[in-house]
Amino acid sequence: MRTLDWDAATASLKMIDQRRLPEKLEIVTLTTPAEVVQAIRDMTVRGAPAIGAAAAFGLALAAQTSRANDVSGLRSDLEAAARSLTAARPTAVNLAWAVGRVMGGVEAFSGSVDGLRSAILTEACRIADEDVAVNKRMAAHGAALLADGDTIIHHCNTGALAVVDWGTALGVIRTAHAQGKRLHVLVDETRPRLQGARLTAWELEQYGIPYEIIADDMAGHFLQTGQVQKVLFGGDRVAANGDVANKIGTYMLALAAHDNRVPVYAVVPTSSIDLSLAHGGLIPIEQRDPQEVLDLQLHGERVAPHTARARNPAFDVTPARLLTAIVTENGVVAPPFEVNLPKIVHAE
Amino acid sequence: MRTLDWDAATASLKMIDQRRLPEKLEIVTLTTPAEVVQAIRDMTVRGAPAIGAAAAFGLALAAQTSRANDVSGLRSDLEAAARSLTAARPTAVNLAWAVGRVMGGVEAFSGSVDGLRSAILTEACRIADEDVAVNKRMAAHGAALLADGDTIIHHCNTGALAVVDWGTALGVIRTAHAQGKRLHVLVDETRPRLQGARLTAWELEQYGIPYEIIADDMAGHFLQTGQVQKVLFGGDRVAANGDVANKIGTYMLALAAHDNRVPVYAVVPTSSIDLSLAHGGLIPIEQRDPQEVLDLQLHGERVAPHTARARNPAFDVTPARLLTAIVTENGVVAPPFEVNLPKIVHAE
Repeated sequence: MRTLDWDAATASLKMIDQRRLPEKLEIVTLTTPAEVVQAIRDMTVRGAPAIGAAAAFGLALAAQTSRANDVSGLRSDLEAAARSLTAARPTAVNLAWAVGRVMGGVEAFSGSVDGLRSAILTEACRIADEDVAVNKRMAAHGAALLADGDTIIHHCNTGALAVVDWGTALGVIRTAHAQGKRLHVLVDETRPRLQGARLTAWELEQYGIPYEIIADDMAGHFLQTGQVQKVLFGGDRVAANGDVANKIGTYMLALAAHDNRVPVYAVVPTSSIDLSLAHGGLIPIEQRDPQEVLDLQLHGERVAPHTARARNPAFDVTPARLLTAIVTENGVVAPPFEVNLPKIVHAE
Repeated sequence: MRTLDWDAATASLKMIDQRRLPEKLEIVTLTTPAEVVQAIRDMTVRGAPAIGAAAAFGLALAAQTSRANDVSGLRSDLEAAARSLTAARPTAVNLAWAVGRVMGGVEAFSGSVDGLRSAILTEACRIADEDVAVNKRMAAHGAALLADGDTIIHHCNTGALAVVDWGTALGVIRTAHAQGKRLHVLVDETRPRLQGARLTAWELEQYGIPYEIIADDMAGHFLQTGQVQKVLFGGDRVAANGDVANKIGTYMLALAAHDNRVPVYAVVPTSSIDLSLAHGGLIPIEQRDPQEVLDLQLHGERVAPHTARARNPAFDVTPARLLTAIVTENGVVAPPFEVNLPKIVHAE
């Protein structure tokens, strides 16, 4: 099953509620663009490619629920939905990419209002289908970089749950595993939302890939003591110079790998590459509710003092100098990224 | 009140149960060396200087509970207790240091068996009292390094709870705060045992020092974005070349600080310096129960899949090249550490 999918029978968007895993596998049904915005914000759905696809379906729901009876009225309702979907989370560029792609079609469209409604749904489904194909191609390129016997540190969740299906960095690991390479994954638990301990561990259980969970601050020790051969993660937005905004903690992980000469690969579809930004310092970093840091419990008791405050930046920027290569569906990009990224983005 | 203290009325060792904070402030009473070994192992008491003092009192309890009626019989009981106390945890050298100091006196002792019992208790109390004085001196040296307005990232707990009283790195912050410097502390929550979110936050609340808790993997972001002026932590064992074994995660924090040219200070008493080890690679790193990583709960539910495995190294080694200076009770030591550490260890 896909992480999110259009249900033609009920004309609604179905998605796995990622907040409940691994305890419960629950499917939620969304019927309005406002519900999609909320699901993206509260991380019912997360992962840059997945929220891109969700936003595309959000526009399909906007088209469906709009009472407009002409194309210009529908366009105007879609533009409002596009604005709120794009603003749901700021860092991953896939949201703007997917919304922009659907809205490009809306602008160019000529035909009936029902024809437009149908064209939007078709385009959203195409984005979802292409996402699966893109992931498989990325995984094939990346799998060639992994060797039999590798131990890999992986940050956050970049598996099937982070995309429509298959996965980015975890997709690479899945494909290499399917090729018969024996791999071991050290799973960064990925505070504060614990996508590693919750989602990546759950996925690796399904795939039968051996893994162990580590606290994020342990990665340096395993790298330093020669126990790790590769570091892999995804990306929410890659700037033109190769700087990668990804889940908070990626920078420290990449730094520790680099300090120990362990190769570091960011695995991202070209839809996550934003050539309009010269460097990572220009990528907006989402600040989330500090409660996400404070909510932790041990043995049924809250960890932090009840009056404690916290900070909660959701992403950080890994400088391009720490990356060995960026893996995309169009191939593996080596430095200098400012030269090689534009070529790969425009490659077919 | 002290973190641990001899209770003359009941001839027992009283200590704060650090596993229950911040929810409950509970005092436990120990009457045998085996109970002290257990309290060190299960982290009822933790922090390199605190477990050193606890081990010294453990020998006092061994002397008290021994049925020996001559000095040689008592010596033999003490040697057995010394071995199990030293072996309780492997990384912090303070355990071996404190046990060695007491046992040096035992070997040199001439007199009655009751005289020896009394001499051991006297020496343990002296170690505890000296620890407080040493912390105050360290704090005075270190406080001079902090500037009004500094934001500091601090790892683990190095406050009063980690020592007999006052603190090492947190002692520096307390003293600078008492001098009127306005400081803000970003408290690494310090997975997996969360000594930062639980203990350091609780201490900072008592002292009225402004702080915010961050997940350990966020430190790099704050350093990278120019929001941090100093990084401070303690140490469990410092090798002759200045490599510092400290709570897991310290290496990645120091690396991120170094990458952003933010000064990094390890604050350790000379009793944590082990000149017998040439470099940090020779320091034994404790591997603890993986359950400590997996025990985490969010909203009443266990985070990781029930079949998940984990790794749990409790310490890592921060290479000396990442340190700006090491702060001790005898002064601030600058590189080259292999030259300057022996001078400071032997200074009076």
